[in-house]
Amino acid sequence: MPHMITSSRLLAASTCNWTRAMNELGRFTGEREQDFSGVDRAALLAALAQILPGDCVLSELEDLRPWECDGLAAMRQLPLVVVLPEDESQVIAVVKVCSALGVPVVARGAGTGLSGGAMPHGQGVLLAMTKFRNIVSIDPLARIAVVQPGVRNKAISEAAQPYGLYYAPDPSSQIACSIGGNVAENAGGVHCLKYGLTVNNLMRVRAVTIAGDVVEFGNHALDAPGFDLLALITGSEGMLAVITEISVRLLPTPQLARCLLATFQDVVLAGEAVAQIIAAGIIPAGLEMMDQAAIIAVEGFVHAGYPLDVAAILLVECDGTPEEVAEEIERVTAILSAAGARELRVSRDEDERLRFWAGRKAAFPAAGRISPDYYCMDGTIPRRRLGEMLAAIAEMERKYALRCMNVFHAGDGNLHPLILFDANVAGEQARAEAFGAEILELSVQLGGAISGEHGVGIEKIGQMCAQFDDAELRMFHRIKAAFDPDGLLNPGKAVPALNRCAEAGWMHVSNGRIPHPELERF
Amino acid sequence: MPHMITSSRLLAASTCNWTRAMNELGRFTGEREQDFSGVDRAALLAALAQILPGDCVLSELEDLRPWECDGLAAMRQLPLVVVLPEDESQVIAVVKVCSALGVPVVARGAGTGLSGGAMPHGQGVLLAMTKFRNIVSIDPLARIAVVQPGVRNKAISEAAQPYGLYYAPDPSSQIACSIGGNVAENAGGVHCLKYGLTVNNLMRVRAVTIAGDVVEFGNHALDAPGFDLLALITGSEGMLAVITEISVRLLPTPQLARCLLATFQDVVLAGEAVAQIIAAGIIPAGLEMMDQAAIIAVEGFVHAGYPLDVAAILLVECDGTPEEVAEEIERVTAILSAAGARELRVSRDEDERLRFWAGRKAAFPAAGRISPDYYCMDGTIPRRRLGEMLAAIAEMERKYALRCMNVFHAGDGNLHPLILFDANVAGEQARAEAFGAEILELSVQLGGAISGEHGVGIEKIGQMCAQFDDAELRMFHRIKAAFDPDGLLNPGKAVPALNRCAEAGWMHVSNGRIPHPELERF
Repeated sequence: MPHMITSSRLLAASTCNWTRAMNELGRFTGEREQDFSGVDRAALLAALAQILPGDCVLSELEDLRPWECDGLAAMRQLPLVVVLPEDESQVIAVVKVCSALGVPVVARGAGTGLSGGAMPHGQGVLLAMTKFRNIVSIDPLARIAVVQPGVRNKAISEAAQPYGLYYAPDPSSQIACSIGGNVAENAGGVHCLKYGLTVNNLMRVRAVTIAGDVVEFGNHALDAPGFDLLALITGSEGMLAVITEISVRLLPTPQLARCLLATFQDVVLAGEAVAQIIAAGIIPAGLEMMDQAAIIAVEGFVHAGYPLDVAAILLVECDGTPEEVAEEIERVTAILSAAGARELRVSRDEDERLRFWAGRKAAFPAAGRISPDYYCMDGTIPRRRLGEMLAAIAEMERKYALRCMNVFHAGDGNLHPLILFDANVAGEQARAEAFGAEILELSVQLGGAISGEHGVGIEKIGQMCAQFDDAELRMFHRIKAAFDPDGLLNPGKAVPALNRCAEAGWMHVSNGRIPHPELERF
Repeated sequence: MPHMITSSRLLAASTCNWTRAMNELGRFTGEREQDFSGVDRAALLAALAQILPGDCVLSELEDLRPWECDGLAAMRQLPLVVVLPEDESQVIAVVKVCSALGVPVVARGAGTGLSGGAMPHGQGVLLAMTKFRNIVSIDPLARIAVVQPGVRNKAISEAAQPYGLYYAPDPSSQIACSIGGNVAENAGGVHCLKYGLTVNNLMRVRAVTIAGDVVEFGNHALDAPGFDLLALITGSEGMLAVITEISVRLLPTPQLARCLLATFQDVVLAGEAVAQIIAAGIIPAGLEMMDQAAIIAVEGFVHAGYPLDVAAILLVECDGTPEEVAEEIERVTAILSAAGARELRVSRDEDERLRFWAGRKAAFPAAGRISPDYYCMDGTIPRRRLGEMLAAIAEMERKYALRCMNVFHAGDGNLHPLILFDANVAGEQARAEAFGAEILELSVQLGGAISGEHGVGIEKIGQMCAQFDDAELRMFHRIKAAFDPDGLLNPGKAVPALNRCAEAGWMHVSNGRIPHPELERF
């Protein structure tokens, strides 16, 4: 139901708070897609002009164009307006205006997300947190950094470096991506096997609710009483509140890191080697796998020195004190040899270690170099199902007549198949999307999930119907309504409206109890 | 508002689900304490008799008596009825009956909790999960155990032991406490510094909502899309759903563990030594502290060999491979010596290591041996504030004319001051409670929290008003209402009704912005 804009609503906004929210039944139920066609752009711009400096509001077409997508460039949408608040009080003012006028609010950090979580809403405000770039404090004794959400991931480690500390989660985009987006998407990275996802490295988040209240989740102590809203907001993809300050845990920089490169003539053997390393109780700092298609693509691009005549490469990073590293390398080497590794190299110095990683880290641009378009998937599966998944993807390559490069955070079962296609060839994009959907649905059927670290966003919202059943989706919507009774924060993302799943005829395949007909053969 | 019991409500219960919940505005708002005086015991017993075998329903006074408290024995309340379901379908049937009749439901595991989280409701059903004691499966390759909630914590490690694996969180009550209660209270233990709280060691929880729907949070893969309801239910103290199955992460048993015992002539120096160990980037498997009062009490009880003429003892446990242990002991020894440790002993064998720990683990019974009553606190503070807290507690001992033994999970800033009193001496219990409240409020003011690992329950519900402000408490209540629209699950626990905080005149002292007048002097 579109909201009417009246001065009394605007007035109400200035006093709106959780009392109002508690006493009013929110309009958001998640039953069906919301309709914001009644938003009045002129009234919105007039209200924003009263609360923000002129250069903090962008509304001309040429100014909006750079903001029409995030890292999922295949999905584009111009926002109604972009605002660039300078401080928390301006954020509060913006959400109060939007709340009063019934206008969607999409918060955005650096816009590097791969699932379209920060794609603008056509009837909404894009709330760019670009100006929140201060590192507020670093406490080396408590090993905590307090930062604003627009601070780049890598900048936190750079600021902590003089104290011998760093921030562990390292998404591939860490030079550019901002910590607010990392929290919103619960970002991972090649080191999350050992050091955890973003949620495992947070102490506290300060946020503004859609009602304009400032709330803090978590604290700087061991544990927080009450419900764990810190974990709840992490990975909530901008659906619950707008983050304005974040306290992250810092870790001591490892004294030494060395990388093992192992080659295999069979991808299934490589997958089994991964399972055996983990089963032996070793948690390497990184444990990555590339198949031959990926190896050839990256080698032609960055010349990392990978052999081209192998079916798969494993990269195993060991970090810690020199004694720990030496012992772990010895144990990993023994397991890899027994598991059928053909060649084993250990990086001799930091240069060689970085060269080993250069190939892996260049996998995405390498895909872009050999193919006009590619589609990056992000499913997770239990490690022991790696072999099955690889065989199934090979079969899908034939079925959809498209190539797929496979890059895996193998240690934690997080797959990034890169499906190569050319959007200018009729039918290829549709086939690539169907290919990707089939990988995600198989991930769920194998006991895994449709997202490992990239989030659901707009990209995988359809697959959420496969991941969760009706009762679970309804619970998500009720949580959403508890924070955001009118459903104004990032509508249409992350959790599908119930009618969407029903109309698409999705069958819930979680726990493998109700297999998807398409997947019967696996 | 008390619920009316009619056959049409009972009928509705059988079809009630989240659709109903979504469409109805729940009666629970958290504004004020709920009134369940209208519950009809006869109707409840009649309904339960239709769905449970006779020996699964206890309603005679002599049968109810053993269930009137959990580990917080100072707070007692007879339930209306105790039910002991045998499987998930019976749990579903029980909650549906209670939902239809508007009867409170308090789930209970082994009843070892220290904050009264499982104290019965006088107008409610106590849902004892005692019969859920199966270890469903252990997957040594994926390192996951699937267990029922009534399984004892220690039994999981025993079952995993043949595979060289164990379950890390080890509350002091681990021989008796059950994993369902561990999840409900997000239990810790002496090893949680290195291995995390319960929430960090869970993969998946299966639960029954108050509407009788079965939901699963989390999965056996790296990450789960959607809101992080696994973390949300962990530590939710039975307020959101009834847990029926749990998947926990297993870890490889460390090859070796050794314990350092260090003595100090000054508790503040000991506190600083703790901060320096952590700041050096060392995360010991355990890092515990006892003050002189605690040392004398436990030494008289278990003869652990602790010196009696010291102000504080630190116990530092190092585990891992022999090389890792040797290196860590060397580094910790250097730090402790520089920090002013007078005596340093390293356990020579497993017997001596267990003897070092025997004293620490016996601290609570030792308090019970030297004092008719004691009150165990559970605040957390940033590690660097340990010295201040110790000085303040010494001052409070004079103010309240009561002794206090101090036992700390020092590494993570989690304090367990044991306030000694005699309930038979007029005024002592009241003074002990005021003493405890002042410690918790100071914990919040120092940037910490009122609970580290024991939960809030009924014991610390008043201090929640100090920990959280109005907007934050309202958010908790909205989350509660999203799961449990009528507020039937464990009412009166963990999150205070808003009128309770208002009437008690609490001032929110989080972030030290509004200091409590009593605490001005710190």
